[in-house]
Amino acid sequence: MTAPRRASPNTARRKEASRRAILTAAFDLLQEVGYAKLSIEGIAARASVGKQTIYRWWPSKGMVIFDAFLMLSEGADGGPPALPDTGDLAADLTAVLRATIAELNDPRYDQPMRALATEIAHDPELAAAYAQRLEGPLQQAKRQRLGSAQRAGQLAEDIDLDVAVEMVWGPVLNRWLLRTGPLTAEYADRVVTTALNGLRPRQPGR
Amino acid sequence: MTAPRRASPNTARRKEASRRAILTAAFDLLQEVGYAKLSIEGIAARASVGKQTIYRWWPSKGMVIFDAFLMLSEGADGGPPALPDTGDLAADLTAVLRATIAELNDPRYDQPMRALATEIAHDPELAAAYAQRLEGPLQQAKRQRLGSAQRAGQLAEDIDLDVAVEMVWGPVLNRWLLRTGPLTAEYADRVVTTALNGLRPRQPGR
Repeated sequence: MTAPRRASPNTARRKEASRRAILTAAFDLLQEVGYAKLSIEGIAARASVGKQTIYRWWPSKGMVIFDAFLMLSEGADGGPPALPDTGDLAADLTAVLRATIAELNDPRYDQPMRALATEIAHDPELAAAYAQRLEGPLQQAKRQRLGSAQRAGQLAEDIDLDVAVEMVWGPVLNRWLLRTGPLTAEYADRVVTTALNGLRPRQPGR
Repeated sequence: MTAPRRASPNTARRKEASRRAILTAAFDLLQEVGYAKLSIEGIAARASVGKQTIYRWWPSKGMVIFDAFLMLSEGADGGPPALPDTGDLAADLTAVLRATIAELNDPRYDQPMRALATEIAHDPELAAAYAQRLEGPLQQAKRQRLGSAQRAGQLAEDIDLDVAVEMVWGPVLNRWLLRTGPLTAEYADRVVTTALNGLRPRQPGR
């Protein structure tokens, strides 16, 4: 038997370099021209590859953008994301939500993230890929942080953790996407406090 | 001096009939072909008017869709929207949120509302028109209902009413738009309970 033919290490390295060049070009162009004017042709030109190379790897520009975000989210260490856990739930959530708001307000990310979010809104298949590969690990990290607070008695026992995550992040994402109000650090603090305490009055000191 | 020339009642009536035909055609076509394939030409053909008639009144297809929603939201009585106020805040919010979810799950509205939401996400000018003319009166009705509960001592005194509204509607709109989970009546109940009680444990009976 002969060994199966495999791509040489050089070929694999060249392919990975092309893939990264394409994803970087897509992300950069998205910031410059917006999603509506983004084209596979434009990405190919910017990345100095043939259009067919892109079509061979991705079925649509939505999926190219998706993979560009996936590349960005791969941390330096490659480990799964985790939320800080200092034992002070309000402080940890506020820190994370303030960082989220800073990212949403950053012009480098605003346009690409809007493009991804609105593609997801119209494309159930992309939404499923997003839920599994990008949002899934992040959602898991948020659930874990809230679950550890719940085990420590800091969250009500009968809370649905998915709903709890949405109480904290839903208002912020919704305000950002539908542009219904300013996104400030002070707003992050208010959302965390309101989500934790609820709308009903509490007895002082509880 | 001669009186200024005014359109005759017949002309005004014909104009209003054309406007309604165009908006109805736009809304219907949106459900059938989706926003990306919706064109001014298509709307004109469906409404049996010339393309120029549409361009004379609206600068973009996003604004046509916007006005189609505005037409839908004009109630039979023409009065401003109001939320039910039976004195039982949880019951009132649950009823309204279940109705919202039923609408979001209705195929007649899902596609047009996604189109409007994603146009808003990319178009600050449309977002401003939306905030003022469509979302504004609704937001005001929600604030009023929560404000009346606050005055009755059913909501904490230091609650920001805008944040309170977002605690109830934000998770639902976000789950719908980003397709991150099922939208059921049971989910509406859970969101209302969690928003009112907060994530932290409460003493029984409070």
